[in-house]
Amino acid sequence: MGNGRLCAGLGWLLLCCWLTSVSCLPRPDRVPEPAISVQPKPCEAPQQWEGRAVVYDHNTGRNSRVLISYDGQNQRVRILDEKKGHIPCKKFYEYIYLFKYPVLFKIEQVTKQCSKLPLLQPWDPYDIPDNSTYEDRYNIGGPGDQIEVQEWSDRKPARKFETWVGVYTVKDCYPVQETYTKSYNVTSSTRFFDLQLGISDPSVFTPPSTCQAASPEEMNDDC
Amino acid sequence: MGNGRLCAGLGWLLLCCWLTSVSCLPRPDRVPEPAISVQPKPCEAPQQWEGRAVVYDHNTGRNSRVLISYDGQNQRVRILDEKKGHIPCKKFYEYIYLFKYPVLFKIEQVTKQCSKLPLLQPWDPYDIPDNSTYEDRYNIGGPGDQIEVQEWSDRKPARKFETWVGVYTVKDCYPVQETYTKSYNVTSSTRFFDLQLGISDPSVFTPPSTCQAASPEEMNDDC
Repeated sequence: MGNGRLCAGLGWLLLCCWLTSVSCLPRPDRVPEPAISVQPKPCEAPQQWEGRAVVYDHNTGRNSRVLISYDGQNQRVRILDEKKGHIPCKKFYEYIYLFKYPVLFKIEQVTKQCSKLPLLQPWDPYDIPDNSTYEDRYNIGGPGDQIEVQEWSDRKPARKFETWVGVYTVKDCYPVQETYTKSYNVTSSTRFFDLQLGISDPSVFTPPSTCQAASPEEMNDDC
Repeated sequence: MGNGRLCAGLGWLLLCCWLTSVSCLPRPDRVPEPAISVQPKPCEAPQQWEGRAVVYDHNTGRNSRVLISYDGQNQRVRILDEKKGHIPCKKFYEYIYLFKYPVLFKIEQVTKQCSKLPLLQPWDPYDIPDNSTYEDRYNIGGPGDQIEVQEWSDRKPARKFETWVGVYTVKDCYPVQETYTKSYNVTSSTRFFDLQLGISDPSVFTPPSTCQAASPEEMNDDC
């Protein structure tokens, strides 16, 4: 934890001043020294929300539109493929991620056929981890019609390139975009929108009855 | 031009009513009929602005940060690579696109070495063409901290999949994102931000003196 971060907390002000040997009292007989550049602190993203997203998968080059119910408190996410247009042979799925168990239910939306799959990746909430690196702050839009956002990453200066970049609104810390990269290359990118706070129907995290006898195997995407 | 679009213009209201044989006067003796669904009309994007952008190139998998000066009236664009971090052997360029001539000047920022290249692609302004298909409208962010945007494409229902998707703000029609796809696959995607209306310094479109004796060949990106 750097002195900059330490100074950011108001409660630490006096301790910080003492540690860095900078007088905290105004000295009217001297020209004020320039302010110390303070590394911003990550904001706290909302813990429960519903919204929509477009997920871009670099491997397939495709964009998918989904509805998301996000419950950070209970480490669970429900994702519903949005049926947009008709693509021959395309199946639409519902995904219920229960990271505490850890298991993923994948349900075909028409037949309700269900697969119960082990959840291999660790819980990774939609938020900005405390040790993130502040990258940028900018406005989407222009004068009179804009929103201010901030960009954070897991880059470590002179040590590690980023594998994650998160864009969040400045005022309320809503997620706007999350991008994952590997060896500089984008692997996936998710744009969020139409967020509403809270979970209107918690039953969406309960798998349907067809999942009681679910196969532990991945479904076939063929026609 | 469909009847829906025709009806959208207020000046065309009476003519439209006459053409579609729908009475425009209220008839209190009848329950009102449901409103005819009207295809929204593309908004007019600003013609001159300066801003920043992140360009994602699918071929390389890389994100580039650039400064843009956009002069739609004179069909010229100036793009400056932002120097962000140190990447060994990475060269940063300035690009001056003059579509009326049509020529592209590519200038290495340190040495000012200049290439004068034929501009093969046609002028494609940052706007929503009149014949575009309305795809969606949504909010980036959440309650109390959001901006409303609209999505348009060149998709033709039952005839052609989209090769371009443009996201613009609803209120002032600022560009937010432009994505190009080919056979469903994203080829490039540009996110815009920090837009300011007008061109503060028109001289940015004048190539430097090194371009007077510019080579018509592409520069070598090697170290």
